[in-house]
Amino acid sequence: MVDYLKLQSFVCSVFESMGCNKNDAELATDVLLSADARGIDSHGVARLAGYVRLYDHGRLNPNPNIKILHESPSTALIDGDKGLGLVVAPFAMKIAKEKAAVAGTGWVAVQNSNHFGIAGYHAMKALDQNMIGWAMTHAAPLVTPTFSKEKLLGTNPIALAIPALNEPAFVADFASTAVAYGKLEILQRKGLDTPNGWVQDKNGDPCNDAFAIKNGGALLPLGGDREHGSHKGYALGAIVDILSGVLSGANFGPWVPPFATAGFMSATESVGVGTGHFLGAMRIDAFRPAEDFQKDMDKWIQRFRSAEAVDGKSVVIPGDPERELEIIRKKEGIPLLEPVLKDLKVLADRFNLSFDII
Amino acid sequence: MVDYLKLQSFVCSVFESMGCNKNDAELATDVLLSADARGIDSHGVARLAGYVRLYDHGRLNPNPNIKILHESPSTALIDGDKGLGLVVAPFAMKIAKEKAAVAGTGWVAVQNSNHFGIAGYHAMKALDQNMIGWAMTHAAPLVTPTFSKEKLLGTNPIALAIPALNEPAFVADFASTAVAYGKLEILQRKGLDTPNGWVQDKNGDPCNDAFAIKNGGALLPLGGDREHGSHKGYALGAIVDILSGVLSGANFGPWVPPFATAGFMSATESVGVGTGHFLGAMRIDAFRPAEDFQKDMDKWIQRFRSAEAVDGKSVVIPGDPERELEIIRKKEGIPLLEPVLKDLKVLADRFNLSFDII
Repeated sequence: MVDYLKLQSFVCSVFESMGCNKNDAELATDVLLSADARGIDSHGVARLAGYVRLYDHGRLNPNPNIKILHESPSTALIDGDKGLGLVVAPFAMKIAKEKAAVAGTGWVAVQNSNHFGIAGYHAMKALDQNMIGWAMTHAAPLVTPTFSKEKLLGTNPIALAIPALNEPAFVADFASTAVAYGKLEILQRKGLDTPNGWVQDKNGDPCNDAFAIKNGGALLPLGGDREHGSHKGYALGAIVDILSGVLSGANFGPWVPPFATAGFMSATESVGVGTGHFLGAMRIDAFRPAEDFQKDMDKWIQRFRSAEAVDGKSVVIPGDPERELEIIRKKEGIPLLEPVLKDLKVLADRFNLSFDII
Repeated sequence: MVDYLKLQSFVCSVFESMGCNKNDAELATDVLLSADARGIDSHGVARLAGYVRLYDHGRLNPNPNIKILHESPSTALIDGDKGLGLVVAPFAMKIAKEKAAVAGTGWVAVQNSNHFGIAGYHAMKALDQNMIGWAMTHAAPLVTPTFSKEKLLGTNPIALAIPALNEPAFVADFASTAVAYGKLEILQRKGLDTPNGWVQDKNGDPCNDAFAIKNGGALLPLGGDREHGSHKGYALGAIVDILSGVLSGANFGPWVPPFATAGFMSATESVGVGTGHFLGAMRIDAFRPAEDFQKDMDKWIQRFRSAEAVDGKSVVIPGDPERELEIIRKKEGIPLLEPVLKDLKVLADRFNLSFDII
């Protein structure tokens, strides 16, 4: 178990060592560690070494000049200047909120960025001003459209954060696939097969191989197969890709650049500028009085949470499990796997940082 | 097979007989028949008798005074005045487009409406001005959140229409459930069971009963069960419900009024005003030059359509099958089932209309 504050301090030092200024390093650390605290371990410090690899390969600018390329009263297009998505996306969300404060809503498409961590973090940044926050991003292709043998979409997540009054906010944050890639990694470590409906093999046939992607197969869209609505998961992933990539002038579809993993450093061809995101903020009182809405959200949440459930289970409000875990982990520490700790130690050695996080 | 133009003329007469003015009757007919033409038969003239039942029960105002209750540069809240959703939603989409023309985007929440037909129709109305159209609506509860025995959500569809240049538009229009209710009706007529993952019984256990809903069971969210991501389908349906219902001040969740089916006329309690929708329009050139975007959309569409597919299949762009069917059915006619024809004949008799549609 790793102490949260010590981990925070260490991660921040790594970003600073890479050349980020203190503010950006702290912000990037906050985004990254929110994933670990909220239990989305695959998107937290496990990726820190990957960001450094992006930097080593010249794909990441630690001191980006993030700027607005075009705007209207409720929209903006932003150039991330190859910055950390962890820094570019918060900038974009700030613009979205400023637009919403004046125009009612604000919508920002981002090009020339990199992986932005968990979508939910960015969506939740709208809550402090009584706005509904939206965040989505595309990612490198691991997913096949329905009936395709080729991987053309990423796991392309969508997040919405919606404020309530006395109840905690509704925070949905989900990939448009049946499962996240991290769930395959867990099965790989245990030597187990996947359930039906998660992956297909290189011929496009259903399979149960936890190593399917490494063997030329793919993750399946939410729904799994056509009979269970995979064309809907495919449409959802496509929408995220088009808003994040095509609307922003970034790459899209199979051309989205991969995150830094060994031997998988860049797309072979480029059709736009870097990776893209799409963020939005909607001011509640641009529609109806905020407190009326928030009271109704309390009612919505209470009704759903108290629904009669199957034995031994309860109906969960999106965001509940992550919020509860965040409280525990910030107090009790973050469980990091041995390979992740090893990666961090390598970074400590490289940047000559003390490594006293455990 | 029923001739499209004759059916159009007949349906329009029914709406006029119900008290709609000619413009509204023509508009409502256009929306309703677009469902039949595009192959979403459950949302077309099969529902005409239901709209008349809503009118008979005082839930539908044939001459609504649709008005803006509140607005900001990029938003509006609209009171549908108990009008046909088929008329209220086009009004709302017109406002969304007007807002987008000035502010870059326009977002309209609607309260006090009724069933609005197919979401895709409304989203597609943004295309003629090079805008991305959004449409969603909630509906009466037939769907259980993950682990719930109680039905708290409707099939809550989402539609996005995205313009291309030489390629036809990308038009996604899908329910947030594994399957639409119409698919159960087909199995009911054939006396067949459902596949796994479509429905559950009244105890919340998985089942294969095509009559599950009539027997106290429910449709499952997209994903089917927790292991296959039903919590994502649940989150998606919840987002549609909150934007359509809570943000608009309409009813929400289990309180959404049912469409008019026998013995199922109204919710027992009301927490808002009627049924709600949420519509949006985004001007492409509020983000980047429209033609650059449209060329990239052509590239996106061509790449996905030409993806290597499994044997005997092809990768389909959302909207392709419906658009192709629409051309055929407008020429060759609409296939209507015997019970639907019988319902229409009853309406012809009641309103003293000639019934020469076949």
